Amino acid sequence: MRPPRRRASQSEDLVPEFWYNIVPDLPKPLPPPLLPDGRVPPREMFERLFAKSLVEQEFSSERFIRIPEVVRDTLISLGRPTPLLRARRLEELLGTKARIYYKYEGVLPTGSHKVNTAVAQAYYNSIEGVERLSTETGAGQWGSALSLAGALFKLKVRVFMVRSSYEQKPYRRVLMELYGAEVVPSPSRLTKAGLSVLERDPNHPGSLGIAISEAIEDVLSDEKARYSLGSVLNHVLLHQTVIGLEALKQLEELGEELPDYVIGCVGGGSNYAGLAYPFLRFKLSGRRKDMRFVAVEPRACPSLTRGVYAYDYGDTAGLTPLLKMYTVGHRYRVPPIHAGGLRYHGDAPSLCLLVAEGLVEARAYHQTEVFEAGAIFARTEGIVPAPESAHAVKAAIDIALEAKRSGESPVILFNLSGHGLLDLQGYLEYLEGRLVDYEPLEIDISYLPKVNV
Amino acid sequence: MRPPRRRASQSEDLVPEFWYNIVPDLPKPLPPPLLPDGRVPPREMFERLFAKSLVEQEFSSERFIRIPEVVRDTLISLGRPTPLLRARRLEELLGTKARIYYKYEGVLPTGSHKVNTAVAQAYYNSIEGVERLSTETGAGQWGSALSLAGALFKLKVRVFMVRSSYEQKPYRRVLMELYGAEVVPSPSRLTKAGLSVLERDPNHPGSLGIAISEAIEDVLSDEKARYSLGSVLNHVLLHQTVIGLEALKQLEELGEELPDYVIGCVGGGSNYAGLAYPFLRFKLSGRRKDMRFVAVEPRACPSLTRGVYAYDYGDTAGLTPLLKMYTVGHRYRVPPIHAGGLRYHGDAPSLCLLVAEGLVEARAYHQTEVFEAGAIFARTEGIVPAPESAHAVKAAIDIALEAKRSGESPVILFNLSGHGLLDLQGYLEYLEGRLVDYEPLEIDISYLPKVNV
Repeated sequence: MRPPRRRASQSEDLVPEFWYNIVPDLPKPLPPPLLPDGRVPPREMFERLFAKSLVEQEFSSERFIRIPEVVRDTLISLGRPTPLLRARRLEELLGTKARIYYKYEGVLPTGSHKVNTAVAQAYYNSIEGVERLSTETGAGQWGSALSLAGALFKLKVRVFMVRSSYEQKPYRRVLMELYGAEVVPSPSRLTKAGLSVLERDPNHPGSLGIAISEAIEDVLSDEKARYSLGSVLNHVLLHQTVIGLEALKQLEELGEELPDYVIGCVGGGSNYAGLAYPFLRFKLSGRRKDMRFVAVEPRACPSLTRGVYAYDYGDTAGLTPLLKMYTVGHRYRVPPIHAGGLRYHGDAPSLCLLVAEGLVEARAYHQTEVFEAGAIFARTEGIVPAPESAHAVKAAIDIALEAKRSGESPVILFNLSGHGLLDLQGYLEYLEGRLVDYEPLEIDISYLPKVNV
Repeated sequence: MRPPRRRASQSEDLVPEFWYNIVPDLPKPLPPPLLPDGRVPPREMFERLFAKSLVEQEFSSERFIRIPEVVRDTLISLGRPTPLLRARRLEELLGTKARIYYKYEGVLPTGSHKVNTAVAQAYYNSIEGVERLSTETGAGQWGSALSLAGALFKLKVRVFMVRSSYEQKPYRRVLMELYGAEVVPSPSRLTKAGLSVLERDPNHPGSLGIAISEAIEDVLSDEKARYSLGSVLNHVLLHQTVIGLEALKQLEELGEELPDYVIGCVGGGSNYAGLAYPFLRFKLSGRRKDMRFVAVEPRACPSLTRGVYAYDYGDTAGLTPLLKMYTVGHRYRVPPIHAGGLRYHGDAPSLCLLVAEGLVEARAYHQTEVFEAGAIFARTEGIVPAPESAHAVKAAIDIALEAKRSGESPVILFNLSGHGLLDLQGYLEYLEGRLVDYEPLEIDISYLPKVNV
């Protein structure tokens, strides 16, 4: 007889026609962005940076927002719906009765979930007459996703890439250039921000903060250009909910009720929110109060587990409005862990509110144990997880083992947000026992703006 | 209204329960392997190298061979069925009325189709009590697929990796080691073959020929070990037919009749045969005589377009039995093109017979035009093709443009056998205009064994 299905189908019909906006379902109103003087920034300020439709979504209180047909069709052409699989061999290895499922976003062209919002952002900018998008990227995941989306919607894309990554990780740059994007090593001579840094130090390695400053200055100096962000903001998380909305239907197809645990790694929060928010609805509405939601972060950058819930800048340069979030402070010097996508000082405001209200719990891990979990997953299920996604794998394994000890058999769902085929350097260091585990640095937030007082 | 479906579903039911063996349907009997003295080698010789079940498949005349449930279930757990997509944006860019479909094998964990046979080979070896598999790999595609399969079926795997690749392409090695395989730079000190080379030149860069010699010697010196091959042989091509069998059902689901063109790149022939053979049945049986089958190879190694149809060794070292195939001669020094998987002096005997009978036609391209096609595909469909697969993309584009000129609207199907995320060096050189196009070398086959006389 046939073994039980281990993989949901991937019919186009599984791709939702609406995004889910969690804001109206939050237990408390979402604290608004603020200016350092405590005022709420004017709409115009956001509309100068982002396409109007995206600003509308950013502040929308509609529970469901229709996905434009072109966006939905494009996502389908790029590989949505993505697979939902059961990790049977991992279950067997762990000897757990837990049923472990994972949603796999790595089948998308750039190897991660980032393209889900890149496509939506490029689409809205293109129909609003924007000609060019500017953004920053660290290791290059976000930059390559936006470069692809720009190619599909005929938008010029300029990516300010942190110079150290630009020089040490040429392949992500190649990928962006292959998609037709202009990749500028930051600090650059294209902006005042970049120039001032280079004047002080011509060999400055760059930072995400400087790259953000350059991208924003670049946009403000070009009427036809807009800025694009890969995480943190409400509209970005909104676009990622296709992940969880597909997973809801796919789990049902595999004969499962709602999962007992929903797990994901958190940098800015977009891949986790994308999977978790459509499931969180059931907890927020009281239908499944017992569901547990686990956000996983690196111990080296422990905003959710050790940060303070306060207003801080979204960027390390202090250019953006202030956002209420769990933060280690925008001046926190994040240690050079391999999971570049998790090296962010704060987290998405909506996710932080849910953590503050005790609806989402957080865990933090060292990178050695995370890469070990990634290796275990590769040897059992075949896929090499991205270092970021391996954080979710580690938590899923721990929770499955806890269930084994307590004799329970929960349904565990986690987001495998990307593959690690472009991150094998970290696995090389893991195999050679060369990985460094960084303890959290001291968290000093005394310099945070006075709106917190 | 909804745009027409551009993507077939991926229900588990689409994965076939039988492999298709083309041998009994060939227009002529397949010329048997021969020893240099003209004798047919004894079964025992093959059974010392390969699992018995695989030798049985190698010489089987059964049209359909059942896929063991465990193998089928494992393939499903790794991502089968793979997607079949319509390349609408590419069609629009070309302004062709042709409908272009592609089967995408790059969603599998190691990024290519290779795992389809690796899983089957590991399974049969494991149930026959084999404890270790030994093989060779150039760039590492095959080595990583077999390493993964070994991890899934608890077999030790030793991969002799051409030293130059071992040193220049550490990431494929990392992938193999991550799956638990032992990767040995070849020439090595583990075998007489390796030692003799190192005695002459301690810094020898190695070659596929030497690596094969080492793997075979390694197997012959260990009763519990067997050899594993990633292409060329009948049983390998047989295992790859899951690709075409899925595509048959998926095209039907998208409302298409049989395609007019079936295209694929050819190194040893396994990814092309995997897609094409289930469709070739309809041509061989006379039901669709007009279907055209196009095998694409690099001009730098033009076995099908310029080689001779003769008995030659399967390896460059001259250790294997002789196979009747189109060959440029096993001493041909293949120029260092980026498509490492196509740098083979011969081709699968069954495919060569079909070319000799005029049932499959061949085309050859330079790598610059191939990478250009790959870049066009990346910018329209999003996926960066592996350099090997980009050969198929180039032919599909050419055929679509020919159709445009002749006012026809054929259905074109090609195999996108893998993604290029681990081959971005080639695209880097393409973007910088540094790619070298190598003219075919002179083909001297005067040294071929006398069985040809």
